[in-house]
Amino acid sequence: MKEKFYSYITDLQNHITSTLEKVDGKAKFQEDLWTRKEGGGGKTRVIEKGSVFEKGGVNVSAVHGKLPAPLQKQFEVDAGDFYACGLSLVLHPKNPFVPTVHANWRYFEMYDAEEKIITQWFGGGQDLTPYYLFNEDVIHFHQICKQVCDNHDSEFYSLYKKACDDYFWNEHRNEARGVGGLFFDYLKQTDEFSMQDRYDFVTEVGNSFLDSYVPIVERRKSTFYNESHRNWQEIRRGRYVEFNLVHDRGTLFGLKTNGRIESILMSLPPVVQWKYDYHPEKNSEEEKLVSVLKNPVDWI
Amino acid sequence: MKEKFYSYITDLQNHITSTLEKVDGKAKFQEDLWTRKEGGGGKTRVIEKGSVFEKGGVNVSAVHGKLPAPLQKQFEVDAGDFYACGLSLVLHPKNPFVPTVHANWRYFEMYDAEEKIITQWFGGGQDLTPYYLFNEDVIHFHQICKQVCDNHDSEFYSLYKKACDDYFWNEHRNEARGVGGLFFDYLKQTDEFSMQDRYDFVTEVGNSFLDSYVPIVERRKSTFYNESHRNWQEIRRGRYVEFNLVHDRGTLFGLKTNGRIESILMSLPPVVQWKYDYHPEKNSEEEKLVSVLKNPVDWI
Repeated sequence: MKEKFYSYITDLQNHITSTLEKVDGKAKFQEDLWTRKEGGGGKTRVIEKGSVFEKGGVNVSAVHGKLPAPLQKQFEVDAGDFYACGLSLVLHPKNPFVPTVHANWRYFEMYDAEEKIITQWFGGGQDLTPYYLFNEDVIHFHQICKQVCDNHDSEFYSLYKKACDDYFWNEHRNEARGVGGLFFDYLKQTDEFSMQDRYDFVTEVGNSFLDSYVPIVERRKSTFYNESHRNWQEIRRGRYVEFNLVHDRGTLFGLKTNGRIESILMSLPPVVQWKYDYHPEKNSEEEKLVSVLKNPVDWI
Repeated sequence: MKEKFYSYITDLQNHITSTLEKVDGKAKFQEDLWTRKEGGGGKTRVIEKGSVFEKGGVNVSAVHGKLPAPLQKQFEVDAGDFYACGLSLVLHPKNPFVPTVHANWRYFEMYDAEEKIITQWFGGGQDLTPYYLFNEDVIHFHQICKQVCDNHDSEFYSLYKKACDDYFWNEHRNEARGVGGLFFDYLKQTDEFSMQDRYDFVTEVGNSFLDSYVPIVERRKSTFYNESHRNWQEIRRGRYVEFNLVHDRGTLFGLKTNGRIESILMSLPPVVQWKYDYHPEKNSEEEKLVSVLKNPVDWI
């Protein structure tokens, strides 16, 4: 399973980066290969100063070795080896009318002393962070998410949509990071689902990513914007930074376990503003976004 | 003691903000009064878009009530009332040759069921975060810090200078946030020092703040800078954000215990950049700064 999934995510990385380069039309992804002292490594691909993407990363990593102490504690095991691989992406478009997007699909295995798998699971999801709200864009994104879920189980979409709203809740701001999507974790073997079923589901989610996002980019990338739209985007990006650095478990885990810092923090936006106590004007488009972030919506 | 120290910090707030307004010559501090549901409140004063200070805050707060659960845990007590007051300031200058500065001086009391004080202490310090290194500026800042310390105890400066380097260590970047200053906490009554001695020390530190910082501002505020200096400042400000949101105990405590978010996050710089895997040129002024941040220096 691990070889199969790793091969899948490296193919998907190629497919996503080559497609996004075509969408951008100007910038190319730069690749950095890195290795992890304790075992494994990754392929970080970053795009900067594109005509569409101001900054973004589409990264693959596969790490293995002794389970780090914080994970031992989290999984309530004494020791043991692990293997984890995944694809993580974040895209920060230049145009404030194009939403930021984040996605991650990952696989985890843990072994006993005889190197037998004692547990294995998939996790991941994808979520959208607009600066201006276009209902049709958000509905399109969620429709693709739902379609993929419905192909596997009629309850997946509502479960994983809610898990996404819960996970990306920016607690100290009392608002969502964005308009959600899917979030799932610990997808293990059950009576109902084999690991192959889990693989089929996660890879179908991964395969649907470009369909969920690229049509929105194409529709909005040439929308005229002025400095005030851009200021709003940069202020909202501040909330994205706050979520990632204060609450995001993946980011904090990476920072506190000696992960490759630059691959982890490629998720941070290129230019960000913090204004003191900024509130958008009443009945503005900016305020409309905030009211939706305060009260997550069932888009479908 | 609490009335005396609160009165001291409100006077000091007035003195600092009026002096900084004169230094800036253009922008004025805007004051927001806020109250805390559980008891107390504060006076937040923020300056934005000044000719010298791009953003800054000089805040006083005094809060009281039942000890919040995370503090109960930290102090290993079951319940009890508390009182805490302090002045916090952060100044982000516009000119990349003027350093950012942070300072905080605070007082804490905890009571038993009969409302008798069971423990009380002072804490605080001040530290400098330059974007370009001028040894004479850093030495001046540390000299003022040392002078004040030496007036009270010959060991204070070396103890609190080291505590500052330790506290403002940006662990995941393996570098200091800045070039340090003083950091002290839990200054309680001992055989050697009465609470009045502690008060005398902390207030003398507070009184020295403008002398430690304003001469540096005056010396550098008109230095010519170009876009490349400004880019470097904005990238380094990213590290400031990373420290405050990932490691700073005060910020995280405030965010997780329902503090006034806008008063806490006034510390974040106005405009920030994150570039992927950015490294300054070999032997540049920018690299000189980084090498000092990686290996804290004894400035005196």
